[in-house]
Amino acid sequence: MGLTQQLVKFSTAEVPEEAAAMMRLSLFDWAACGIAGAREAEFAPFRRAAMVEEGPAHIFGGDGAGAATAALINGTLSHALDYDDTHFAHIGHPSVAVLPAVMTLAETLDTPLTDAIDAAAVGVEASIMVGVWLGRGHYQIGYHQTATAGAFGATLAAARMLGLDAGQTRHALGLCASMASGIKAQFGTMAKPLNAGLAARTGVEAALWAQAGMTAAEDGLEGPLGFGVTHHGEGAEVKPPRKEWQISEISHKFHACCHGLHAMLEALADVGLEADRIAAVKIRTHPRWMSVCNIAEPKTGLEVKFSYRHTAAMTLLGHSTGAIANFSDAVARDKDIIALRDKIEVVEDETLSETQSQVTLTLTSGEVRRLRHDLMTPITLEARSVKLRSKVQALLGEGHGDALWTAVTGSDLDAVTACFEGAKGSGDDGR
Amino acid sequence: MGLTQQLVKFSTAEVPEEAAAMMRLSLFDWAACGIAGAREAEFAPFRRAAMVEEGPAHIFGGDGAGAATAALINGTLSHALDYDDTHFAHIGHPSVAVLPAVMTLAETLDTPLTDAIDAAAVGVEASIMVGVWLGRGHYQIGYHQTATAGAFGATLAAARMLGLDAGQTRHALGLCASMASGIKAQFGTMAKPLNAGLAARTGVEAALWAQAGMTAAEDGLEGPLGFGVTHHGEGAEVKPPRKEWQISEISHKFHACCHGLHAMLEALADVGLEADRIAAVKIRTHPRWMSVCNIAEPKTGLEVKFSYRHTAAMTLLGHSTGAIANFSDAVARDKDIIALRDKIEVVEDETLSETQSQVTLTLTSGEVRRLRHDLMTPITLEARSVKLRSKVQALLGEGHGDALWTAVTGSDLDAVTACFEGAKGSGDDGR
Repeated sequence: MGLTQQLVKFSTAEVPEEAAAMMRLSLFDWAACGIAGAREAEFAPFRRAAMVEEGPAHIFGGDGAGAATAALINGTLSHALDYDDTHFAHIGHPSVAVLPAVMTLAETLDTPLTDAIDAAAVGVEASIMVGVWLGRGHYQIGYHQTATAGAFGATLAAARMLGLDAGQTRHALGLCASMASGIKAQFGTMAKPLNAGLAARTGVEAALWAQAGMTAAEDGLEGPLGFGVTHHGEGAEVKPPRKEWQISEISHKFHACCHGLHAMLEALADVGLEADRIAAVKIRTHPRWMSVCNIAEPKTGLEVKFSYRHTAAMTLLGHSTGAIANFSDAVARDKDIIALRDKIEVVEDETLSETQSQVTLTLTSGEVRRLRHDLMTPITLEARSVKLRSKVQALLGEGHGDALWTAVTGSDLDAVTACFEGAKGSGDDGR
Repeated sequence: MGLTQQLVKFSTAEVPEEAAAMMRLSLFDWAACGIAGAREAEFAPFRRAAMVEEGPAHIFGGDGAGAATAALINGTLSHALDYDDTHFAHIGHPSVAVLPAVMTLAETLDTPLTDAIDAAAVGVEASIMVGVWLGRGHYQIGYHQTATAGAFGATLAAARMLGLDAGQTRHALGLCASMASGIKAQFGTMAKPLNAGLAARTGVEAALWAQAGMTAAEDGLEGPLGFGVTHHGEGAEVKPPRKEWQISEISHKFHACCHGLHAMLEALADVGLEADRIAAVKIRTHPRWMSVCNIAEPKTGLEVKFSYRHTAAMTLLGHSTGAIANFSDAVARDKDIIALRDKIEVVEDETLSETQSQVTLTLTSGEVRRLRHDLMTPITLEARSVKLRSKVQALLGEGHGDALWTAVTGSDLDAVTACFEGAKGSGDDGR
């Protein structure tokens, strides 16, 4: 069975409880990223330019639009901080493409929250399947898998939301094959989050237009002259999941900085020592990260996001690395942090994987503590919830964070989207 | 100077009189294709689904929308009949990507018609440059150059319409590098014309969003991880035109059937013989076309569009091949046409190019006439106007065709777009 046919069949799959539970956590995380992202003032003029119509679907920061427009804007805003979830096999950020499509359609269609969660889980799982199928070659040549594989996941989720039949779903995927796009040349520009927004809009439009009778290639994804062969897809073998869905391997970011720092920050999470008891710190990391996030003496908040030494010192001194506001120029200049930073050394270690880090703490007493963490270590849904709630509270404030948590764990869609308004779209609240 | 930089510079080029004159003819041809395309009933539900907002830009067949939405719909409708213009070096149909972007922006910005014509000429010329730069390899692997190269042309035209500065224009092209898309797998489906509509919308959105401060890769088109390398671009050397623009080599379709038949139909255009004086007809054509448009005994109007013998007999009997309505099932069954068709033979000839055809007519008197035509034969603007006026009259009726001609040769933009309404969007007027 070809990939398209597999996806069409998978669009109506029953969603396992664990997959739905994981999707709810990602909804919580994604919504917080979107609400916080809407405060980025530089995106405000884009948001106004893209708002071509008013409608029932909430946009992060306030206002409402039709499903396609809202998906475009919400996808973009929720990826603006680069603080959303990741799936390593997908090679991308699954929620920012799929959830904007699902949630804005849910609001226009009045879909129950549980059904929206199921559609999103199917869409995310599908985007992982397509991401794996496209493979690392697709990513390496320069495609932004978040956007390309993500568009197909968003399309399948939207098709399920609209209740398309098998033929229409196939046409929707075929339309997506002409619309999915996005390149890595954009990294470091505002077009990177835009890629996610475009993928989300593609999902909504492909499904709505297929519903309106638009036809497309039957094998637009994997056929000759199709998306895979034109876009350097590797065509790796993939199969729809049986019991265990790949969605269970989603990584959430718990630190508002470069992903290369996260294993080290997790290793240091529970040290609980007074700073004056620390004599020396040695951080071992995969060689790949040495050129990515090893700024020895950062001068700005932005540079701090790419500094092992500075973020390690912050953590040891109790500064949260989950709060975006802590990556400020003032923190870059903080004397106590700099004093501790001077005791920290970073070395590369080829025996570690990219997701591993090892830290050796030498105390003034002579005691030596060895700590290590691997981001691939399974984490229970409960433990993940605790960490996510703390992240979201840091992002949105305790009240707003708790309200969002209550909403996403409930059954009322409107309660969730009511939380999207955040700072009412001011986009310039002084952050 | 890199391609992006060349395009940015070219965006403000002065447009030679001949290029502008050619663009006016293409505007005339394109508008007629769009008005006629809007009558295709199967596109009516898409049109409704895509109409997310009302606005000042005319949509073919009636109604108005904002610039981006109108560009999407008009680009799609104007390519629905596959009767619009072609540029062989571009490997695509330039007007359906560029003109919808320019004309819908012109209506929202109140741009004078002459300035819109200039912007369109720059956009079309730019799309040819990008098409040549991407090369045949890009087309062969499966990209629809009309949509990919076309999106960059539409973006540059839109940037000129909005008066973007060099930096903004560069960002617009960078945004386009993440948005341009469209594959050939769609040929034969409704997604083929949709590709053109998406390219037109991309042009409008990329320029508007760059104006709103969205940033993108500086070298999204030709840099590492950029559009060219990811999309199998050949990177052929291109330079902006000096005196002679490539737009002068646009081909217009004068027959509502497969392009492979056109050289033969042109060769037979002025024969002027009574059918009973014809004893035998031998058509020679490039071998490539034998599997494309050589249905010996077509049974339907659609099959007639791919039949040398049937269309040759139609032409010799005075049935216009410029009128879409003539490609009907009734014409496929017409006894007189079939009788003459039985005297016609088609043979392949490797000495001919794809744009050439040769016809030998043997009369009952024993006289032999040899006719030939090459589509690449230059044609004056005057001769082209005459043929286009006749084509458009056949498409729209004499009154509507003449009104459109008067409008596009005048200076009033609103007079042109007033003609777009056509059959008032009924989409089901019995055709």
